Amino acid sequence: MKAAVWYGQKDLRVEEVEVSPLKENEVQVRVAWAGICGSDLHEYEEGPVFMPSQQKDELTGQQTPLTMGHEFAGIVEQVGSQVKGIKPGDRVSVNPTLTHGNKHEDVDIYDGFSFIGLHGNGGFTSFANVPEENIYILPEPLSLQDGALVEPMAVAVQAVKESNIQFGDTVAVFGTGPIGLVTIVAAKAAGASRIIALDLSETRLQKAKEMGATDIINSGEVNPVEAIKELEKDGVDISFEVAGVEPTFKQSIEATKARGTMVIVSIFAGSIDWNPMQLTGGGVKITSTIAYSPSSFQQTVDLMGTGQLKPQEMITDKIQLDDIVEKGFEALSNDKSQAKILVELSGEL
Amino acid sequence: MKAAVWYGQKDLRVEEVEVSPLKENEVQVRVAWAGICGSDLHEYEEGPVFMPSQQKDELTGQQTPLTMGHEFAGIVEQVGSQVKGIKPGDRVSVNPTLTHGNKHEDVDIYDGFSFIGLHGNGGFTSFANVPEENIYILPEPLSLQDGALVEPMAVAVQAVKESNIQFGDTVAVFGTGPIGLVTIVAAKAAGASRIIALDLSETRLQKAKEMGATDIINSGEVNPVEAIKELEKDGVDISFEVAGVEPTFKQSIEATKARGTMVIVSIFAGSIDWNPMQLTGGGVKITSTIAYSPSSFQQTVDLMGTGQLKPQEMITDKIQLDDIVEKGFEALSNDKSQAKILVELSGEL
Repeated sequence: MKAAVWYGQKDLRVEEVEVSPLKENEVQVRVAWAGICGSDLHEYEEGPVFMPSQQKDELTGQQTPLTMGHEFAGIVEQVGSQVKGIKPGDRVSVNPTLTHGNKHEDVDIYDGFSFIGLHGNGGFTSFANVPEENIYILPEPLSLQDGALVEPMAVAVQAVKESNIQFGDTVAVFGTGPIGLVTIVAAKAAGASRIIALDLSETRLQKAKEMGATDIINSGEVNPVEAIKELEKDGVDISFEVAGVEPTFKQSIEATKARGTMVIVSIFAGSIDWNPMQLTGGGVKITSTIAYSPSSFQQTVDLMGTGQLKPQEMITDKIQLDDIVEKGFEALSNDKSQAKILVELSGEL
Repeated sequence: MKAAVWYGQKDLRVEEVEVSPLKENEVQVRVAWAGICGSDLHEYEEGPVFMPSQQKDELTGQQTPLTMGHEFAGIVEQVGSQVKGIKPGDRVSVNPTLTHGNKHEDVDIYDGFSFIGLHGNGGFTSFANVPEENIYILPEPLSLQDGALVEPMAVAVQAVKESNIQFGDTVAVFGTGPIGLVTIVAAKAAGASRIIALDLSETRLQKAKEMGATDIINSGEVNPVEAIKELEKDGVDISFEVAGVEPTFKQSIEATKARGTMVIVSIFAGSIDWNPMQLTGGGVKITSTIAYSPSSFQQTVDLMGTGQLKPQEMITDKIQLDDIVEKGFEALSNDKSQAKILVELSGEL
């Protein structure tokens, strides 16, 4: 079968790979759709970041070259001998997160984690073997395309849960890339009354508005904190930092009201120069999330199933595997109007 | 009457001042004891920090030169015409915090605040006029000396409340100056099972142990985070940053378990070089406190009254006003074994 295999920076090859033998606890998914994630792009542009290039990953036992893709859904082709709850023909979404599983799900991930599709072979191919516990049945209303959006949506559900949002709270989202967009969707579904989206790109801000932002602010054109405080005098109840740079880190604290919460959702590439007195003076709390717990992944499936979470508008293109480099990775690198690009892996399923 | 008046950096003068006319909402306190605070020392060594030297303070309407001293207690001498709840002869402690009072006490202070004894005339003198709402009656078991310890103790009570400590939690306190010591006292009274104190000074660490630390770690001799994790494998539930420098900021996060809380209690003098990924990777939350709410001040009086909070051991010297520069400020600057020095203002009361 064909797969998009990461060999190194700017070296993603669409080539023939073997289907791995199915283990007894695994489910073989015939992949229908897989999304390209910001992390995939990082690996492509400046990797290896997570990719195990020097030695085998502890949790997957695999090493580069590896098939990428960790946001995917499809139809169960066959199941291993120990698999109990999943059967061939089931329509499923994959939670790519592997953990040690030694602790409660709220903290388990902080003992270290690996991703199917980053630390081991993933979903940019026709068949992917996945442990049963990473498989989630899609409810009837959800399409297989929807299923490929569960993973990024779950990142936002976890972030919004972590914010302890209260019904009616005001929210600011700094950065309206794919995760910023789904954060808007999740905040809205959780009952936020006002959602202020901030970005430097007008195209992205328009998309943010389409997906639920009540107000948009172009941080390149006005002072973002002043603009927020014109809307909300004391600042917002909750801010989400989804840009990962020093200016937005500081802005998101400054834009939050005393005893409000700033949630770091982004991945920071390096250090910042910052005075902790910004917290002491403003009374803002900081927390963060990375990925999501299994419960949050299930809740995301459920909330998408009921139609409360609708991330579908984030899809800006659908492409074929053969075009993944040019129309996928290169397009995301060069075109700010792109948000989520889905790759079709098995024709019409 | 004599007073210790701040004129400028290293220029604190004991000189004659006039007693101010008493306003109708004010209580005149005959000061018995007043403690020298770290903030006082900052003003002496490198001020003006808070001292209004260029213009009148918004809340006090006063300007330097000013009588210092904001940790004090005494006996009510007389009361203004509108004062209802306080009478001459009452034994009282003073909450020196002045706020705008436009918001709930949990957030009011973030609109700006001033301190009696820093932004206006304070307690290093014989008589101090204080608004009635800043006066707290001392319960019978507490001496006037105890009353002078309420203010620093309240800082720690607020910090421990903010930590959302649970009965039985494990705690690390980075920095065992006066506020670190009372943080230990407060954490113990709130039910912490293990309290690890960290500092570079062996003398201070011994004092920390006397005041309730279960374990002491000299950060100059061992790796403090490793040493904590030898005691608590996953880290502590809560850490208090009471040192205010980059290394302890990072250490206190690293020493805290996933989904635990780091509370900034210290005042940072400048920026740090820090990667927010430390939070994302470790799952630690950050919050902070500054001063205390009126409710927390009252709770501090109450908890000292019942004997649950015993900060008395922090007192390392008692001096007379005439000696305040040499035996007070200079001693605190030069002698790490000093913690809290109390100044006696009215002879035996």
